[in-house]
Amino acid sequence: MSLLLKNCDILKTENNEFITLKNAYLGIEGSVIDWISTEKPEKKYGEEKDMSGKLLMPGLINCHGHTAMTLLRGSGSDLNLQDWLYDCMIPVEDRMTLSDIHAGRALAMMEMLATGTTTFSDMYMEPEDAVHFCAEAGMKAHFSRVMQSFDPHESYEDNGRGAVNNMLFEKYNNSSDGRIRIDYMVHAEYTCNEEMVRRYAADCKAHGALFHTHISETKKEHDECLEKHRKTPLKWFYDLGAFENPSYVAHCVWVNEDDMDIMRDNGVTCVHNPSSNMKLGSGFAPIPHMLRMGINVALGTDGAASNNNLNMFEEMHLASVIHNGFHLDSTIMKAPDILKMATINGAKALGRPDTGSLETGKKADIIALDMSRPHLYPDHDTTALIVYSAQGSDVCMTMVDGKILYENGRFLTIDADDVRRQVKESITRLY
Amino acid sequence: MSLLLKNCDILKTENNEFITLKNAYLGIEGSVIDWISTEKPEKKYGEEKDMSGKLLMPGLINCHGHTAMTLLRGSGSDLNLQDWLYDCMIPVEDRMTLSDIHAGRALAMMEMLATGTTTFSDMYMEPEDAVHFCAEAGMKAHFSRVMQSFDPHESYEDNGRGAVNNMLFEKYNNSSDGRIRIDYMVHAEYTCNEEMVRRYAADCKAHGALFHTHISETKKEHDECLEKHRKTPLKWFYDLGAFENPSYVAHCVWVNEDDMDIMRDNGVTCVHNPSSNMKLGSGFAPIPHMLRMGINVALGTDGAASNNNLNMFEEMHLASVIHNGFHLDSTIMKAPDILKMATINGAKALGRPDTGSLETGKKADIIALDMSRPHLYPDHDTTALIVYSAQGSDVCMTMVDGKILYENGRFLTIDADDVRRQVKESITRLY
Repeated sequence: MSLLLKNCDILKTENNEFITLKNAYLGIEGSVIDWISTEKPEKKYGEEKDMSGKLLMPGLINCHGHTAMTLLRGSGSDLNLQDWLYDCMIPVEDRMTLSDIHAGRALAMMEMLATGTTTFSDMYMEPEDAVHFCAEAGMKAHFSRVMQSFDPHESYEDNGRGAVNNMLFEKYNNSSDGRIRIDYMVHAEYTCNEEMVRRYAADCKAHGALFHTHISETKKEHDECLEKHRKTPLKWFYDLGAFENPSYVAHCVWVNEDDMDIMRDNGVTCVHNPSSNMKLGSGFAPIPHMLRMGINVALGTDGAASNNNLNMFEEMHLASVIHNGFHLDSTIMKAPDILKMATINGAKALGRPDTGSLETGKKADIIALDMSRPHLYPDHDTTALIVYSAQGSDVCMTMVDGKILYENGRFLTIDADDVRRQVKESITRLY
Repeated sequence: MSLLLKNCDILKTENNEFITLKNAYLGIEGSVIDWISTEKPEKKYGEEKDMSGKLLMPGLINCHGHTAMTLLRGSGSDLNLQDWLYDCMIPVEDRMTLSDIHAGRALAMMEMLATGTTTFSDMYMEPEDAVHFCAEAGMKAHFSRVMQSFDPHESYEDNGRGAVNNMLFEKYNNSSDGRIRIDYMVHAEYTCNEEMVRRYAADCKAHGALFHTHISETKKEHDECLEKHRKTPLKWFYDLGAFENPSYVAHCVWVNEDDMDIMRDNGVTCVHNPSSNMKLGSGFAPIPHMLRMGINVALGTDGAASNNNLNMFEEMHLASVIHNGFHLDSTIMKAPDILKMATINGAKALGRPDTGSLETGKKADIIALDMSRPHLYPDHDTTALIVYSAQGSDVCMTMVDGKILYENGRFLTIDADDVRRQVKESITRLY
């Protein structure tokens, strides 16, 4: 299958810089981009698609989330973290069955597709169901049997999650033409004992997989770890061998200088979740400092329950402005750096060098923005327009591996009505 | 003309609280709401409109902006304030003619309509042209011949702006069925001498008009005023009689306790502009403290050049989360308070008690959200959904005084193609 997208603006990457081509052509052969130019290619493509008035840009990469929490969207807003978690989240999540999780995750994937996300990392339950649904839906995703253990004396074998994840990895990693990956995800320091993390990290290493966890999201978590272990959460994971694996860690709001040195020296990606960090009152991660240090910073939405959506455009916008406000400096974050956080840096974090930018030879993971909207006009600086002016709902097409999954409100691989019906049933059952 | 909107959810206000009616009816007679209920009215309306899958909510009120700066959207992003202002803004604004300002303002009004704003305040040049265009376009707006004076020895008469604004007030205030208002807007302390402000404020009082200005947007402005006048900008305006008028003042990032006492005691509204304050690195206005003190807080977008859009949903979202992050407290801002800031508080600031909420007897200033979007589902808490999950582009209908001005991407009172052509011509000429 080959496809030529024509008459559109294209935000391509050249020498690690964004360049906007006006009235240009993008050709796709199979799942791969084979032409980007203002010149029409000589090659005949099987199909030509007019994209006048649209901007093509790389699909967004959401490096941290909990998909099925869409079911809890907006529940318990404005409570303190403890009341929100123990009164509104955990009791409902406790009641959730496979069918609820399936429905919530399907809704999440619809939302992500409709707001321009092509690849995501999902720290949630029922990963095997997720693998099958995502294989059909056509997105790229990272799943895991997430490690957690609430009994300090539980053995790794009795816990069992490690063995399940090894099985998942062997069965599904790199399945669906590499779209599906199995990572080794640990919930957090405060929900695991040392043995669990050491053994799980070793299993991760044995499989050559990626390691993911939450790090220093709240001051409370950070301080309690210091008290309990006499070290920061990041140092605790480091000492247990976690970062012998390629790792991406969420939040890092309270990391210290030593933590950031470890991150830089071990190539650990920080996944910044500004909506969640602001909404839950967690604080300002030292993102400008990390960028200066050369730490890879990617973006995530966290779960819809603490955000309350899965809109990577909103994460870009928040990441671009809140640090300026916090540091009283309008120059501290730059639009191109933000856009890289949502695209190529995410691809790097997730070990996917073949996506995250529009370049020939890369996978055709592409979204189109409808530039006819009044707020996307005029275009003095396309990167700034995307970061500061655009909204998730401006996405009018989302394509993964050359296949259109969403276009103008329609989902081409997901039965949206059926998902809505399932979500309604779940909500009725759960509340 | 009478119209019944049916089969929709309605976010009505009762006893100053938001209540969501499911599958309800909203009736409009002329420009006024005369029915809101889950019961179908007995009265026959001239037209019935099916609004299945939509949520009706009050139109948003943007209390601070500079409309024509849409032309500069995205120009000079990420520079420091001085370079941005003196290299990218002022030289272009200097070259702007009436036709440029007209085009930029028309684009701004399209953007506001498409993202749910029904009423706005506009601190910009060429107010008479604005009055005429807005009369046709059907929005509600506040314009002014803005006071500024760069010569400390200039007389009020030589400056002339006061006389022009008196003429504008007498000619246009409350025109177009009260949709158009003329306020007395002063640019800022640092662009006026005392005589200008004293005389202009007195003219404002003589006309019973509203007073508007910028206050303590940046630390630099605040500190320089302290040095120059031995008082804060707010105290300086207060001593010149400005707040003997009903007043709404933008930013208030650096106001102190005494300033806030003056605001409370004189009923001065703070117009919070979170996008602009964050993006320009101005800082965090003490909004939670003002709310506790009972100061009226409204929302504004500021100009599109420092935002970079006119999307009040984005302002609501930022206002709802950044203060939680800054104060490390997830309970400090509540979704209903934020929604009031964008609606009823704005109506109060602008002296329009007949708008800002959906209640029988109020003007039919109504927007509809398309609730079929995945990120607006499920609905555990409609107010939270609007504040935390919705986007400006979810607006599918905007109505002012019972007249639909925007619906499903189409502008019914503005020739959108002509505006785009005008903007293109202006950009070509200005850059």
